[in-house]
Amino acid sequence: MTAILGHNFIGGARSAAGTLFLQSLDAASGEALPYRFVQATPEEVDAAAEAAASAYPHYRQLPASRRAEFLDTIAAELDALDDDFVAIVCRETALPATRIQGERSRTSGQLRLFAEVLRRGDFHGARIDRARPERKPLPRVDLRQCRIGLGPVAVFGASNFPLAFSTAGGDTAAALAAGCPVVFKAHSGHMATAERVAAAILRAAERTGMPAGVFNMIYGGGVGERLVRHPAIQAVGFTGSLKGGRALCDMAAARAQPIPVFAEMSSINPVVLLPAALKKRGEAVADELSASVVLGCGQFCTNPGLVIGIRSAQFSAFLERFAARMDDQPAQTMLNTGTLASYEKGLAALHAHPRVRHLAGQPQEGRQARPQLFQADVSLLLEGDELLQEEVFGPASVVVEVADHAELKRALHGLHGQLTATLIAEAEDLASFADLVPLLEQKAGRLLLNGYPTGVEVCDAMVHGGPYPATSDARGTSVGTLAIDRFLRPVCYQNYPDAWLPEALKDGNPLGIARLVDGIVTRAAVA
Amino acid sequence: MTAILGHNFIGGARSAAGTLFLQSLDAASGEALPYRFVQATPEEVDAAAEAAASAYPHYRQLPASRRAEFLDTIAAELDALDDDFVAIVCRETALPATRIQGERSRTSGQLRLFAEVLRRGDFHGARIDRARPERKPLPRVDLRQCRIGLGPVAVFGASNFPLAFSTAGGDTAAALAAGCPVVFKAHSGHMATAERVAAAILRAAERTGMPAGVFNMIYGGGVGERLVRHPAIQAVGFTGSLKGGRALCDMAAARAQPIPVFAEMSSINPVVLLPAALKKRGEAVADELSASVVLGCGQFCTNPGLVIGIRSAQFSAFLERFAARMDDQPAQTMLNTGTLASYEKGLAALHAHPRVRHLAGQPQEGRQARPQLFQADVSLLLEGDELLQEEVFGPASVVVEVADHAELKRALHGLHGQLTATLIAEAEDLASFADLVPLLEQKAGRLLLNGYPTGVEVCDAMVHGGPYPATSDARGTSVGTLAIDRFLRPVCYQNYPDAWLPEALKDGNPLGIARLVDGIVTRAAVA
Repeated sequence: MTAILGHNFIGGARSAAGTLFLQSLDAASGEALPYRFVQATPEEVDAAAEAAASAYPHYRQLPASRRAEFLDTIAAELDALDDDFVAIVCRETALPATRIQGERSRTSGQLRLFAEVLRRGDFHGARIDRARPERKPLPRVDLRQCRIGLGPVAVFGASNFPLAFSTAGGDTAAALAAGCPVVFKAHSGHMATAERVAAAILRAAERTGMPAGVFNMIYGGGVGERLVRHPAIQAVGFTGSLKGGRALCDMAAARAQPIPVFAEMSSINPVVLLPAALKKRGEAVADELSASVVLGCGQFCTNPGLVIGIRSAQFSAFLERFAARMDDQPAQTMLNTGTLASYEKGLAALHAHPRVRHLAGQPQEGRQARPQLFQADVSLLLEGDELLQEEVFGPASVVVEVADHAELKRALHGLHGQLTATLIAEAEDLASFADLVPLLEQKAGRLLLNGYPTGVEVCDAMVHGGPYPATSDARGTSVGTLAIDRFLRPVCYQNYPDAWLPEALKDGNPLGIARLVDGIVTRAAVA
Repeated sequence: MTAILGHNFIGGARSAAGTLFLQSLDAASGEALPYRFVQATPEEVDAAAEAAASAYPHYRQLPASRRAEFLDTIAAELDALDDDFVAIVCRETALPATRIQGERSRTSGQLRLFAEVLRRGDFHGARIDRARPERKPLPRVDLRQCRIGLGPVAVFGASNFPLAFSTAGGDTAAALAAGCPVVFKAHSGHMATAERVAAAILRAAERTGMPAGVFNMIYGGGVGERLVRHPAIQAVGFTGSLKGGRALCDMAAARAQPIPVFAEMSSINPVVLLPAALKKRGEAVADELSASVVLGCGQFCTNPGLVIGIRSAQFSAFLERFAARMDDQPAQTMLNTGTLASYEKGLAALHAHPRVRHLAGQPQEGRQARPQLFQADVSLLLEGDELLQEEVFGPASVVVEVADHAELKRALHGLHGQLTATLIAEAEDLASFADLVPLLEQKAGRLLLNGYPTGVEVCDAMVHGGPYPATSDARGTSVGTLAIDRFLRPVCYQNYPDAWLPEALKDGNPLGIARLVDGIVTRAAVA
């Protein structure tokens, strides 16, 4: 097995100039693992940003096919990591080995999908408006547009997906695909995992001849602030808490040169249960929904944290079974003690609210998280009480009963922005409640029907985004191929000769990509 | 001629609750014109934002063809405005009638181009990933994505294009096309113009059955701040000064819910003169460049404010002729006294700098702007002196002489972000200076060869954007059809039945648009 050095990854080399050390912990026992990491010094943070900046001019200009080869090779290196690697991830996160193996496949699949996007070529956004020398009153000159990478991107991964949303996760893959070198801030919850993955990325970079500095990783608490403020950094990708994400947004906005931040933060993912569906399959919904709430110990951004139904006999029956099922769910170990502490704090706030009632769950105590179910008065949603708006990260959910269709709409209207919004409905519900869809479109990035939001498919059509505070910019997504758009900007070439144009814009269309030529999409060469 | 009431436009009606009045002025004489405007009260600002919010759910869901009809009708109403209208614009801005007539055509053409974009349908960003029930280990569910308007947009127009970048200008057209109602802050430099244009928009809204509140306009100083802070506003478009744009960005970032701002601000638009071109046609370049610097009294965002050449006999000869041509240029009236004062301040700073030399131009005095040419020592660029980085809005330019190719690259490297970067070059220059292109790509949104940046074509391939401080977000453009992207966000539908999907995503492809289906662009129906 590869040794874990604990040194920062800067410009293709390892660096450990600092004197502060961080310890990797066993998530289940809290015991120290035999891995120690050296916090990056301020100079090392700067050096990492500058290494990325040095790599940028060369890296962004590589043919997209070369970057695709790099991503494919990272995927192969990840897939080749041994069982010891899986064991380390499990120890650092308390997640089961099958989950980690599945997440690894998802992560390498994600890298391969971005490689496909690079080969497909639509990310270039190629547009050509040919010269019209004969146009009156003024001739039109030749104008062509395509997109280039923004520059070095700082990426902050999440604790809950130590692979798919971390070191070689979606933000890193999207940035590297876009032609942007990355400086990754290793998550303190899985530093040994991060080191193994970073080493895999560097092996891939070496095998495919990428410039030193294409990927860098730093360890430490607070080093991210200096990173986001570094003038070389041109964009930020973040997955984590509302507090952490908002702090980065504020820092980025306050720079001499403000930069875009895509932060995926807080979502309670409302699930609306419609009457005919409850009548027909209320018991099954109760079973499925409780399984979704506790899946992965509820540690998903898309965990269903709010369940809404209309007062009725079938809703009461559903609620009884849902509470019973939640009572049945075993305690689970969370990602780390910080996550558990924050779960306990969230539960305490719900217990303390006079208009929130505890429905199910053993008293929270010990080292594991116990699933919990609450019922809140609808007035909390109607009055915009902040308690219901921020997610309680963990295996808990809150039920709200509304009086009727009209109150349901008012309650939904009071919600903040969400990653997902789900309807559980039969065909006859669809007929009666069609007016919910436009309302949910305004609230969420992804609308589900008769499914549970905890699965996030990696594909072209996925949106893992949504209005604030789900994310800091509703125009982006951090899962799916559209994620690359966050890190690209358009450049226009006016009257440039073919030899000086990027490949994507040359007359002969050497890349064979679809282009918008004089307003029409075509793969044809330009005469 | 239509009377000019001077009341705010809120929710399809006129409103004048305030007691503060603003006067329209004759730009040439400074005299009061017989038009008085009532500043919006704080309550009226809120009412305008709320009117836009009320219109949003209905307006965004209209078929794109209906919004296209609205834009076409605004264009027709603009084109139908009478000679009195042109006379008012000329009096308020001191711009000549031919320019205003041309700008009107550009503005109505821009609206019609966005109508074409709506009919073409690529703005929907339709993506379909069909279900794969047979996939192992997990089946894939049907996922579809398209884009919707962000919500009400606050638009701040520019003084220098009272039509094309103002009330019915590019930002308004892009927002309305995207399905976003607009609250426009009337520019204090052309309020009577704004009123006539706003009335034309409202006539078009009425003729095409648009919801009240689809377009609103408020008058006043400082009312924009309250507007940007209003919770209903979901995005901002701005064209103007760096100071003004940055203030709006900071306000938007500090909101409880931060919102995106696209601010087009400051650019000095470097023009690099390469040796073979100077040798072959230095005199012609001197003539053309001086004409570009003084065009429209230099009141363009893309005015060439920095001219760079390599020390040589031909550069000295060019400089001599360029200075002579600049000396020949007559004084011109600026848009308003504020613009003139700011021009005078900019010139004074250049005159005061010990390493800046005055090359041409009569002493600045009186009510008109006199064209000026300066030469700055290259050390100002190499050391990043702020004086050269911010534009002097008006008919002035600064020349910098560099020692050689290497110093040229260092000087360009020191530039901030730009809207444009121009090379004047012959084929043999292209061979020797190919390494400038990637450098300029990193600095600017539009690269020109053998042209002058002051013309900005409205088309699919245009980028009127660029890295900060040219704009607040290099990923956008405020001219050209890509401008619509700033105001759209993606929404994903998971497992939705055909009846509930937006038209753009239905199986049969009723809109007949190009869609990305399972990774392939096609207009075919989905089976």
